[in-house]
Amino acid sequence: MAIILGDNQYGKAESRLVRIYRDSPRHEIRDLNVTTALRGPFEPAYLAGDQSNVLPTDTQKNTAYAFAKSKGVEAIETFGLELARHFVGDVSPVTGARIEIEEYAWERAVVNGAEHDHTWLRKGPEIRTAAITVDASGEHVVGGLKELVILKSTGSEFAGFLKDEYTTLGETNDRVMATALKAQWRFTSTAVDWDAVYADVKRIMVREFATLQSLALQQTLWHMGKAVLEAHDEIAEVRLAAPNKHHFAYDLSPYGMDNPNEVFWAADRPYGLIEAQILREGAAPAGDAWRVSAGLA
Amino acid sequence: MAIILGDNQYGKAESRLVRIYRDSPRHEIRDLNVTTALRGPFEPAYLAGDQSNVLPTDTQKNTAYAFAKSKGVEAIETFGLELARHFVGDVSPVTGARIEIEEYAWERAVVNGAEHDHTWLRKGPEIRTAAITVDASGEHVVGGLKELVILKSTGSEFAGFLKDEYTTLGETNDRVMATALKAQWRFTSTAVDWDAVYADVKRIMVREFATLQSLALQQTLWHMGKAVLEAHDEIAEVRLAAPNKHHFAYDLSPYGMDNPNEVFWAADRPYGLIEAQILREGAAPAGDAWRVSAGLA
Amino acid sequence: MAIILGDNQYGKAESRLVRIYRDSPRHEIRDLNVTTALRGPFEPAYLAGDQSNVLPTDTQKNTAYAFAKSKGVEAIETFGLELARHFVGDVSPVTGARIEIEEYAWERAVVNGAEHDHTWLRKGPEIRTAAITVDASGEHVVGGLKELVILKSTGSEFAGFLKDEYTTLGETNDRVMATALKAQWRFTSTAVDWDAVYADVKRIMVREFATLQSLALQQTLWHMGKAVLEAHDEIAEVRLAAPNKHHFAYDLSPYGMDNPNEVFWAADRPYGLIEAQILREGAAPAGDAWRVSAGLA
Amino acid sequence: MAIILGDNQYGKAESRLVRIYRDSPRHEIRDLNVTTALRGPFEPAYLAGDQSNVLPTDTQKNTAYAFAKSKGVEAIETFGLELARHFVGDVSPVTGARIEIEEYAWERAVVNGAEHDHTWLRKGPEIRTAAITVDASGEHVVGGLKELVILKSTGSEFAGFLKDEYTTLGETNDRVMATALKAQWRFTSTAVDWDAVYADVKRIMVREFATLQSLALQQTLWHMGKAVLEAHDEIAEVRLAAPNKHHFAYDLSPYGMDNPNEVFWAADRPYGLIEAQILREGAAPAGDAWRVSAGLA
Repeated sequence: MAIILGDNQYGKAESRLVRIYRDSPRHEIRDLNVTTALRGPFEPAYLAGDQSNVLPTDTQKNTAYAFAKSKGVEAIETFGLELARHFVGDVSPVTGARIEIEEYAWERAVVNGAEHDHTWLRKGPEIRTAAITVDASGEHVVGGLKELVILKSTGSEFAGFLKDEYTTLGETNDRVMATALKAQWRFTSTAVDWDAVYADVKRIMVREFATLQSLALQQTLWHMGKAVLEAHDEIAEVRLAAPNKHHFAYDLSPYGMDNPNEVFWAADRPYGLIEAQILREGAAPAGDAWRVSAGLA
Repeated sequence: MAIILGDNQYGKAESRLVRIYRDSPRHEIRDLNVTTALRGPFEPAYLAGDQSNVLPTDTQKNTAYAFAKSKGVEAIETFGLELARHFVGDVSPVTGARIEIEEYAWERAVVNGAEHDHTWLRKGPEIRTAAITVDASGEHVVGGLKELVILKSTGSEFAGFLKDEYTTLGETNDRVMATALKAQWRFTSTAVDWDAVYADVKRIMVREFATLQSLALQQTLWHMGKAVLEAHDEIAEVRLAAPNKHHFAYDLSPYGMDNPNEVFWAADRPYGLIEAQILREGAAPAGDAWRVSAGLA
Repeated sequence: MAIILGDNQYGKAESRLVRIYRDSPRHEIRDLNVTTALRGPFEPAYLAGDQSNVLPTDTQKNTAYAFAKSKGVEAIETFGLELARHFVGDVSPVTGARIEIEEYAWERAVVNGAEHDHTWLRKGPEIRTAAITVDASGEHVVGGLKELVILKSTGSEFAGFLKDEYTTLGETNDRVMATALKAQWRFTSTAVDWDAVYADVKRIMVREFATLQSLALQQTLWHMGKAVLEAHDEIAEVRLAAPNKHHFAYDLSPYGMDNPNEVFWAADRPYGLIEAQILREGAAPAGDAWRVSAGLA
Repeated sequence: MAIILGDNQYGKAESRLVRIYRDSPRHEIRDLNVTTALRGPFEPAYLAGDQSNVLPTDTQKNTAYAFAKSKGVEAIETFGLELARHFVGDVSPVTGARIEIEEYAWERAVVNGAEHDHTWLRKGPEIRTAAITVDASGEHVVGGLKELVILKSTGSEFAGFLKDEYTTLGETNDRVMATALKAQWRFTSTAVDWDAVYADVKRIMVREFATLQSLALQQTLWHMGKAVLEAHDEIAEVRLAAPNKHHFAYDLSPYGMDNPNEVFWAADRPYGLIEAQILREGAAPAGDAWRVSAGLA
């Protein structure tokens, strides 16, 4: 049986790009990590080392920085669309482009009670993300966030679960629940107020995490995704990955103390990991929106 | 349109498990990072908080440690198959299991010229990986490695590439090529001498990287994947992701020196990233071998 | 010449301790990383393996969690003093204790426009630190912070510097200045409103960073330290380490664009690193306040 | 009381420098991470922003790369001495220089049974280190290593320790002992075969770790340091920091199994941390060998 080249792409990963707007004394900042990847007829580069269809990754990087000047950087979804459309539309052999962007948030320094014009503090750890794909299957935008670390000190239970011979865990009706949320949401339109939707999706997910009396992290994820879809017609699908960052009540009984969920050991590893998709039935197909070539598992 | 639960799974990630064999004075060690995930009828946990089908992630962890004793830990592919078959076969609502394992290598300490019986040094940075899936689509094993950092100081070129208005990169017929390789290979059988195949696949990939006069990292990846498939009928597919860890010749001309590829700045970010699948045409279908629910991009 | 044991200490590092206050429906959270170390007559443990003077590191950890319940966790400086005094005062062979604590900040989730009673989001990346030493030299408290990432988009210059045959850097009167500040300040009293002083020291340092027209990062550090000492008589000394996180204006001239400090590449490595102590002349001696046995360089 | 500038230094941190020797077809590689820092009369830069004594950190970086060509890179101790002597001797206001270097090890790829001429694999995780100081106190060289991860599966005990009311730990006469060793050793000469001594010091420390029936990690450290000093007259002092990387025997009794030290959970945090200096009594004074301005704790 013949050996063939399958799915492939190449690009420049993690160009750290900072855009300052200084048109007025009150500067603005956008701080990005930009990854670009191109798809197309690149077999000759693999099979024969022929680069005639290969736009260097260095050029892809240059393009990102040049566009940051010529087009500006507003929402990362818009910036990603501009780059993707350029690569597919203007660079002739390229048939598909995937742009992944992380954005780091800054807040203005407060000096003498007022926000400063040109000084900021990094805000975090939450990172905003976008994944834009433009190819024959259309234009796809996936918004998202990661490292949103959130914790509730009550309002979480875990009981009534399946038991087998390896089960030793006790049931609980009151525990700490904490995660470092990764979430992505697929848009069905590109005519979106990206910044406003981002803020609202985050607001909704935080609200659901806080207010649901949670019987399982699964249930919390479902409510988060469902509430986002109910509020945003332009979103077809939400995908969530939530590590269960275990906080174990420390056993103080050897020292004659009880510990009614007041003192915890925050463990590193292992951790639970819950992953789910929540979808709008019958929505527009995803095309290559979620395709992360070459699909390593 | 109704909102529904799509693809989902849950499990325990990163159980750090060390197995010592001490049946003779010459001990043996296997050092693993085990992640388990279950698939099945878990909608009630999401929609209603009903855990009656949910085997706790804590139990999954216990099972891994118990199996390390009762079944032992030989090849990680075997250990993963045992765990996956148990969850699917013995835990009634579970219909699919995915086990991902990393293995850290140790080498015996050399003391007074001889290998020591019970002391080892960590060898690295290379990590061996396995991803095992058992479900209605069958039993799937994907072997792999990551963080194999490899460098050649000559025998690499990059020229004749596509140029546009953002291209400033010069052509070169001699450069350093370095990567931190991630590779995965899909088996079509489970009757494999896993440790022997791992060693041989690595040997082949290193050989191809070293000996090919490379016109592009793409060409090197193709030769690596192709050579593995040619040597191993039990492998249907190889997937590779290779960051191009740039080593830039430092410009010493301001100090009156030339630099014929002797002094380099090893850059962190950005870096090129090349990804490809190399397949045997007409091989057995992959089923869920590559499925990493919930497919965040 | 005889070989002898010199400076030494041992302890438990990085106990991740979370304290929840749930006395009212509006819970409170303190999230710590606690490291304890003991000093004293431990030579027998080294020279002969005799542990009779060695309180296990496991016990030190237990003590931290027990104190979190029995004494509570208010300011980390207070918590550290309580632990250090206990080890020196109550554990008979121990003659010195050093407690290092990191505190991670959380802010209340905002739900329906109001701060939530028992849900928080991690705030960062800034980490508050304290180093407490109790021994024959007295009681010493060092407050601090690290990973305070701060950037100004103008108001920074670098010119008039020393040049030699390896100098190629151009002078500039307008550049981005950014750092991830590490700062520590030594108190001369333990009767301090720790939380208030922490907030004020940070406020002052941010103000100086923002408002000084900086001719060098060195000058900015001096102004930060000096202003803290002028405002806080209870602080004798400030130590600062500031990586100069370079933001290089991207050269867009090959594409026919100028770049008046609008588009930057944020580099990872290498980076400048400026370190300084700013002191109050004639202040109380530091004793072992800064001693980090065993002083690896 | 006046506020004054105390100890200070500045430099360029983490210049990633790779030196390839290609004088014959069998190339050689040295892979470094170089940090330089200068000390001297820099008060004007702090107090008045006057840079006339300040050699830019960019120039320091250029110097390192230029020296890699003009002087070559053999042992990192030699390379560091050359840089330090240059800064102190040739750059007029500079009175002290501190150079810290990490070296990453590579091993030749084996291709068709033979070592390859120009391809290597990274070997790790161990990193070789050097800290060189040249100033009025003399020339000081400190060699070292870090991240030497070593484990023994038996031959380690911990018993007979001090107990108080917070002690719950059981005694053991057989446990896994593992660490990621950081070690530094101070030379009293610069006429040393650096590579040979490095190899021998490492060999001795590994031997002691392996062969001592250890009653405590403290005892192991003492034997490691003592044996190095006994074998190497040119070394005056060894400093060691050893995290006790806990491997906890997993409790399998709930599943009806015993676990005679065969199955372990390798924990991340917290961990024990043992630090010690082992000295040759009456050796030459250390001067500024260990000084890491500005001494943050």
